[in-house]
Amino acid sequence: MKKKITQVFSKIKPIKGININTANIGIKSKAKEDVALVSFKELANVATVLTKSKTYAPNIKWLKNIKNNGKAKLLFVNSGNANAYTGKQGYQNVLKIVNELAKIFKCSKENILVSSTGVIGEQLPITKIINSLPLITTKKNKNNQDWSSFAKAITTTDTFPKGSYKQTTIGNHKYNIIGICKGSGMIAPNMATMLAFIFTDANLSISQLSKMLKHSLEKSFNNISVDGDTSTNDMVSMFSINSKKSNKEKPFTMKQLKKFQVDLDCLSIDLAKKIVIDGEGAKKLIEIEVRGAKNDKEAKNVALSIANSLLVKTAIAGEDANWGRIIMAIGKSSSNINQNKISIKIGKNHVIKNGEIKKNYNESLVTNHLKKNEVFIYIDLHLGKGLSKVWTCDLTKKYIEINADYRS
Amino acid sequence: MKKKITQVFSKIKPIKGININTANIGIKSKAKEDVALVSFKELANVATVLTKSKTYAPNIKWLKNIKNNGKAKLLFVNSGNANAYTGKQGYQNVLKIVNELAKIFKCSKENILVSSTGVIGEQLPITKIINSLPLITTKKNKNNQDWSSFAKAITTTDTFPKGSYKQTTIGNHKYNIIGICKGSGMIAPNMATMLAFIFTDANLSISQLSKMLKHSLEKSFNNISVDGDTSTNDMVSMFSINSKKSNKEKPFTMKQLKKFQVDLDCLSIDLAKKIVIDGEGAKKLIEIEVRGAKNDKEAKNVALSIANSLLVKTAIAGEDANWGRIIMAIGKSSSNINQNKISIKIGKNHVIKNGEIKKNYNESLVTNHLKKNEVFIYIDLHLGKGLSKVWTCDLTKKYIEINADYRS
Repeated sequence: MKKKITQVFSKIKPIKGININTANIGIKSKAKEDVALVSFKELANVATVLTKSKTYAPNIKWLKNIKNNGKAKLLFVNSGNANAYTGKQGYQNVLKIVNELAKIFKCSKENILVSSTGVIGEQLPITKIINSLPLITTKKNKNNQDWSSFAKAITTTDTFPKGSYKQTTIGNHKYNIIGICKGSGMIAPNMATMLAFIFTDANLSISQLSKMLKHSLEKSFNNISVDGDTSTNDMVSMFSINSKKSNKEKPFTMKQLKKFQVDLDCLSIDLAKKIVIDGEGAKKLIEIEVRGAKNDKEAKNVALSIANSLLVKTAIAGEDANWGRIIMAIGKSSSNINQNKISIKIGKNHVIKNGEIKKNYNESLVTNHLKKNEVFIYIDLHLGKGLSKVWTCDLTKKYIEINADYRS
Repeated sequence: MKKKITQVFSKIKPIKGININTANIGIKSKAKEDVALVSFKELANVATVLTKSKTYAPNIKWLKNIKNNGKAKLLFVNSGNANAYTGKQGYQNVLKIVNELAKIFKCSKENILVSSTGVIGEQLPITKIINSLPLITTKKNKNNQDWSSFAKAITTTDTFPKGSYKQTTIGNHKYNIIGICKGSGMIAPNMATMLAFIFTDANLSISQLSKMLKHSLEKSFNNISVDGDTSTNDMVSMFSINSKKSNKEKPFTMKQLKKFQVDLDCLSIDLAKKIVIDGEGAKKLIEIEVRGAKNDKEAKNVALSIANSLLVKTAIAGEDANWGRIIMAIGKSSSNINQNKISIKIGKNHVIKNGEIKKNYNESLVTNHLKKNEVFIYIDLHLGKGLSKVWTCDLTKKYIEINADYRS
């Protein structure tokens, strides 16, 4: 798995008007940077999707309170402490950060996004944070855009920083899309212990950003699963950088927006796969494609039933062609299934065709496929046109090791 | 965990009119018995609940086809091979077993229950089975009732045979309830890779059996989870043994039935806990009680969200008082939650009270509780009167070991 292409931190072409500062202020550990501050020269347009958790963290409460205001001057992120389930004091601490930043940057509080990730249930070292803010901001350099440092500063159990870059041409213009994210455990559909931030210099309105981001999520971050758990702090934000130049441009046509969407989806999927590859203890990336369901939702349901099955994930960890567990996982899903119509392919190998084991099925070919770092499972339910693709990873002893000892 | 009271195979008082034969016919491994045949002198009343899996096995198809006929002469169980996803041939094999047994016992085919558990996707060694049936039945001894051999013969990855016994007094009569079950992995709510068979000499009609069994399931087998996976072969049957004596008795009053239900629930819960204790790789039994939900269903939903959380289960395996993961698991459930009202107790220790960490919260007391073999988690949502209790086990490296190498 290591050194596979998806682990590579993409080479990123900077976007004008963004400034990034990171610092190690001792939240996480003495050796690592744990705070990132992104500031925009001009107010950026922004759309954000928040965790569906009902025990959402105070920073999420702040974002709900400012009603995803749509304009961003600053994005503050800390790692090492999720500031989740920290009650009134936790929310007061978010307000303290926002107040201090608003003073320093002379901006409206509603234009400040706050994001946190790390251990649940501990108060932020707020004095440390407040004291460090002027230092972080004064060390600012107008063209500082170290994306890799930004990506590193927001990691928790991640083993590598995650960044992806895409250039898209619309009309005569070249536009950049930059995405960074973090996430490794507590990963489930509907995002989990993951943060992702996407930036573009394409001039997109708040409502365009919002629509495109939601569309992209359904193809990427909402289709991955490491352990089926959902975090208290998840968020994905997408920023469109405003500049004098961009303001003069014509709005995009529907066709142009569609093209942009394709490239955005591609970037989001790349980021999402990076999270799965870095799944705690994972050795293999598993892609599950389900076709022929009654509709897309039912296809996704079946795909996630397989992706979340511990028995499937451990069988793949053991490189065991135990396809019966895939059948089990299909059977337990809530979607419409006719077991006599199911077809299954593992890699290029037909295993089940129309509900029966394929004649001349050769288990050793499947076993060979399972020895690879990337495993492909294709299901056809032969009931309709529903389609979904999801990604997960195998479940190894290392996952248990990491999570049994997380805080120690 | 080992040698705890719940692992003990209860001392069972035999019930007249039941004959049990077991044999090793080489399905599972050469060393272990893998077939059990239970015959009833008189047709027993029976109620059965089947798996909800949509990829149910041919034996389940047989039971569906005879429409849970309500009268049983024979119960045939094999372990080592689930005869699941074996297509038409798999169903033909079930019919062959049924036909052969009907001939030997001169009974109606509709009175024969067939149950299988083991690997999915392999055909039964049907010739071996058919050839062995006369031998199994001729070695029959009219009063052979070795419950422990029965329990052993139906095990797969179980590390101990599971049996439970309860005597209940109704009016002047003493009645016996005997239950045996198997199950260790692929255990989820709605039963999973588990079989349970309950026998009583109390004279209960088919509809009484059916009602009582369903009620009991909702308090026991449907409230346990090892890994969230659902099997293709699950079934729970309850038999009421008919005898000349029992036929002369007056029907039970509502009050008497209620008393019987309480004892039946008690036996079912004991059996269900035995399955969880034997959860693959488990070192700890975890009891999760949720109160104060809007209704019982929402309470169960929250309890199972915690019970199925890999992060909660690994934290407990690591004896880490990481209560944030419980908060996470409550937050991701689909039930109504007000995070400011949640209270959590671990063992006797208040951790969260009305949404805030308890003053003077002492983590070391919780850590001490987590070092025990039985862990208790109490949640109060303070929203209503909904209540549920579920059981699960911790998730250890051993689980991965067992399941990555299941077939090798």
